[in-house]
Amino acid sequence: MSVINQLTTLIQDSSRVVFAPDIEEKYLSDQLGRKKGNASALVFVNSTEEVSAVLRFAYKNRIPVTPRGAGTNLVGSTVPHDGSIILDFSKMNRILEIDSENFTATVEPGVILEDFQQYVENLGFFYPPDPGEKRASIGGNISTNAGGMRAVKYGVTRNYVMGLELVLADGTVLTVGGKNRKDTTGLDIKDIVVGSEGTLAVITKCLLRLIGKPEKSQSILVSFNSLQDGIEAVPIILRQNTNPTAVEFIERKVVKLGEDFLNLKYPDPEAAAYLLLTFDGAAAEIDGAIQKLSDGLKDSSRRVMILDGSKPELDAANIWKIRGCLVKAVEAVSEQEPLDIVVPIARVADFVAFVNKLEKQSGMRMISFGHAGDGNVHLCVVRGDRSNEVWEKELNANLEKLYAEAKESGGLISGEHGLGVSKRDFFFAQTPAQNVDLMNAIKKSFDTKGILNPKTSYVK
Amino acid sequence: MSVINQLTTLIQDSSRVVFAPDIEEKYLSDQLGRKKGNASALVFVNSTEEVSAVLRFAYKNRIPVTPRGAGTNLVGSTVPHDGSIILDFSKMNRILEIDSENFTATVEPGVILEDFQQYVENLGFFYPPDPGEKRASIGGNISTNAGGMRAVKYGVTRNYVMGLELVLADGTVLTVGGKNRKDTTGLDIKDIVVGSEGTLAVITKCLLRLIGKPEKSQSILVSFNSLQDGIEAVPIILRQNTNPTAVEFIERKVVKLGEDFLNLKYPDPEAAAYLLLTFDGAAAEIDGAIQKLSDGLKDSSRRVMILDGSKPELDAANIWKIRGCLVKAVEAVSEQEPLDIVVPIARVADFVAFVNKLEKQSGMRMISFGHAGDGNVHLCVVRGDRSNEVWEKELNANLEKLYAEAKESGGLISGEHGLGVSKRDFFFAQTPAQNVDLMNAIKKSFDTKGILNPKTSYVK
Repeated sequence: MSVINQLTTLIQDSSRVVFAPDIEEKYLSDQLGRKKGNASALVFVNSTEEVSAVLRFAYKNRIPVTPRGAGTNLVGSTVPHDGSIILDFSKMNRILEIDSENFTATVEPGVILEDFQQYVENLGFFYPPDPGEKRASIGGNISTNAGGMRAVKYGVTRNYVMGLELVLADGTVLTVGGKNRKDTTGLDIKDIVVGSEGTLAVITKCLLRLIGKPEKSQSILVSFNSLQDGIEAVPIILRQNTNPTAVEFIERKVVKLGEDFLNLKYPDPEAAAYLLLTFDGAAAEIDGAIQKLSDGLKDSSRRVMILDGSKPELDAANIWKIRGCLVKAVEAVSEQEPLDIVVPIARVADFVAFVNKLEKQSGMRMISFGHAGDGNVHLCVVRGDRSNEVWEKELNANLEKLYAEAKESGGLISGEHGLGVSKRDFFFAQTPAQNVDLMNAIKKSFDTKGILNPKTSYVK
Repeated sequence: MSVINQLTTLIQDSSRVVFAPDIEEKYLSDQLGRKKGNASALVFVNSTEEVSAVLRFAYKNRIPVTPRGAGTNLVGSTVPHDGSIILDFSKMNRILEIDSENFTATVEPGVILEDFQQYVENLGFFYPPDPGEKRASIGGNISTNAGGMRAVKYGVTRNYVMGLELVLADGTVLTVGGKNRKDTTGLDIKDIVVGSEGTLAVITKCLLRLIGKPEKSQSILVSFNSLQDGIEAVPIILRQNTNPTAVEFIERKVVKLGEDFLNLKYPDPEAAAYLLLTFDGAAAEIDGAIQKLSDGLKDSSRRVMILDGSKPELDAANIWKIRGCLVKAVEAVSEQEPLDIVVPIARVADFVAFVNKLEKQSGMRMISFGHAGDGNVHLCVVRGDRSNEVWEKELNANLEKLYAEAKESGGLISGEHGLGVSKRDFFFAQTPAQNVDLMNAIKKSFDTKGILNPKTSYVK
C-alpha cells in the first residue's frame, strides 16, 4: 500500500477521499482553468480534527498540501504542486455563532461570502467586505485579504477578521485573536496569516466582526465627457469628507460590453465615462453628501443621477449588475488576463492614461475599470484572435510595461487577487531581496518543512 | 579599548553617545520608574544610517539593543537588559512629508503624538489614534499598537500605519507597506511589527494614514444613579448604530479625585456614574445621533447633557481634562498599578461588578474607568500606606484574581499598554504554549541572535 493510501484510515468516510487519477480536473486549477497542477489526493475535510490529522500525516511524509475554498481565485492560488494533498473546505461551511452583543460571527472557512452577507443582513447586521466574486469562500477571502467595492469607506477583509483557528503544518491547532477590540499581548499572528495565500497555516475557523446595518444606502451615477474628467473628479470627491462607501469608474465603451451582455442600459449613453458611487448611513447624512457631490462636480460632469428607481433607467440594482458582470462580459467576447494593479489614489488618472496610450501603441485591447476610490485599477487585457504563441509573448511584454509603470507610480502588481502562481515572477522582479528573504524566513518559522503551498506567492 | 567604546567611531558626534555609568537613571526605566535595568551605552541616533550602523555593530558583538521613544510606557518596555545599547529616538522627530493628495504623512518615530496631531489638524487633516498619553512618540504608539479614546469609531494605531522603514537586527534596512490602500503582494510584515514592542525590528520611518478633519465634534455627558445603569447603557448606545467616536465610563468617586486634583467640577454631582461620549461628523448626523441617544436613555439615565459650553459647567474641554488626569490624580494620592485589561464589550458590566466586589473583599482600593465602548477597562490598584512587602504580595494576589477573571470573560491582560517586562509572567501563565512558541519562532526569523529587546513581552 502506498503511503498516500493511509489517508483513508485518517478520514473515516471514504466518500470524502479521492485519489489520482480520479480527481476531477477543476480541482487541479483555479477559476480561469489555464494553469494546471498535479495532486495525489483530494480530501473533503469536515472538521478541525480531520485537518489536523491530515496535516500531521503530510508533515511526517513531507507531502505538500494545498488548501482550497470555493476555487474562485484568478491567479492559480489553488493549483496544487508535486503530488499535493488538496484540502477542500466546501463541506466546512457552517455558520457557528452570531454574537449579537459583541457584534461578531464565527464561521467555518467554506462559508460562501454571499450566503453569509445575506444571513447577517437578515439579522440587522452588516459584513462590509464586498469583493466582486460573491461566490468566493470566507476562507479564500481571508487568504487573499479580499478588498472590493466598499473598501473606500470600510477597509478590506483584514479589518473584519478578529480571530482565527489555525492548524499549523505539523498539525498543531491554535487560536489567535478573539472578541476583544484591543489586544497588545504579544505578536499579532492573525494579521500575518490574513493575506498569506495558504502558505503559513490552514484556517479552520473565522471570527468576523460585524457592524450594524446602515439605515440607508444610496447609489449615484455621474456621467462625464471624458475618462480624464471622471477620474480627476475622484480626488475632489474624496476631499469633500463625505466618506463614500464605493467610488467606481467605468468607461462608456466598457459599459457597452456589459449592456450587451445583460441586455440592460445605462442612462446618458452619450457620456464617455461614468463614476458610480454609493453613500450609506443615516438619511440626513446621505442627503448632505449628495448635495456636496452635485455642487463639487457642477462644472466637470455632465449629469449627477440619483439611482432611486424613479425612472426605469435609474434602477440601482441594474446599474450595479452591469458593473458586476464586466469581467464575464469581456470573457464572453474573448479570453482575457484579469489584472488588479493598485496605485496610490492620486496616481489613478495618470495610470489609466498610460494604459490607454499602451493600448494604442500595442494594438492589444485593454479594458480598464475599477475601484477609483482606493486606487485599485482592474484591467482586462484581451486576447482577441491571437494564436497561443503570439498571445503569450505579447501579453508578457505588456504585463512587464504595465507592472513597471505601476511600480514607477508607487503601486503594486496586486491589490486583491494575490500572487498565486501567476504573478510570482513579476513579484520577485519588483521586490527587494531583503523583503522576499524575510517573508521566506517567516514562512519557515511557521512551516519548517515547507509543505504548505510551496512555489506559491512569495515562497521560493 | 573595550568593544563598546567603538560606538564613538560609528557616531561621529560624540555628544550623542553616553556610556555607563554616566547614563541618567530615567533612561534605565519607564514612566513609572519602578523597574530598572542596566545599559552599557545610550545613543541619541539621528538617521537611519546611524541606526543601521549601531545594529550591525551590536549584532556582530551580540550586544542587546533597546529602542526608546519618549519613555512614557507603563510596563517597562524601555527597561534595558544585560548591558544593552539604548537607541534613543528623541532627535529623530521630523515630520518629513504631508501628502495631501494621498492623505498620508511620513514622520520619524520620535515625533510626539500631540505635536503631530496639532500639525495635521492645522492643515485640515485628522489623525484618529488618541491614547491618553499625548506626549508619547509615534514610534512608541506603533510599537504598542496604542488604542485610546477614539478606538470605538476609528480603530487603533494599526489601522493608520500604512508603511514602515525598518532596520533589522543585523542592520539590514527595508521598507514595508506604502501609499497603496490595498496590497496582496506577499506577507504583511508591517502588521506583525506593529505592536511587537521593539522585539522584531527597529522603526526608523512611519508612513501614516490621515483622514479629513471632521466637520464638527460634540461631546455629551450622561449621568446615572448607579455604575451598573451606566455600563448597561453602553450596549444600548452601540446598537443605535450612531457610530460614536468615544464612549468612556467614570464612577462619581473617581470623578471626585479628578475634580480635587484640577479644581474643576462635573455637573450633576449627585450622580453615581457618568458616560462621556463624543460624536463627530457632519452637523446633521451628530444631531440625529444625540436625538437617538436621548430617546434611548430616557428611562435609565438621570440627565443627558450636551457639552456645548452654554453654561460654565458644560465646558467640554474641562470635562475631558478631568477624564484625562485620572491616572495622575490617583498618583497624587498614592502609588498605584495602572492596568489596561480588555474584555469583549458585552462583558464590561460584569467585569466592573467583579472589580467592585474584589475591592470590598480585598480591602485594596481599585479605581476603574475607561473605554466602555471598546471593552478596555482601566484600573488603578492603589497602594495606600502598605509597606513594600505587603504591597507587593497583596498586589500580586489581586492581579492574579483580576487577570483570571478577565480570561474567564474571554478578555486579555493588556489592551493597549503592552506586556513589557511587567506582565510577562501573567502572559506566559495565561497563553497556550503553542502560541508563545510560534511568537518566539517568528521573533527568531527576524532576529536570529535575539538581540532586540530580549526578555521583553513574549520573548523567552
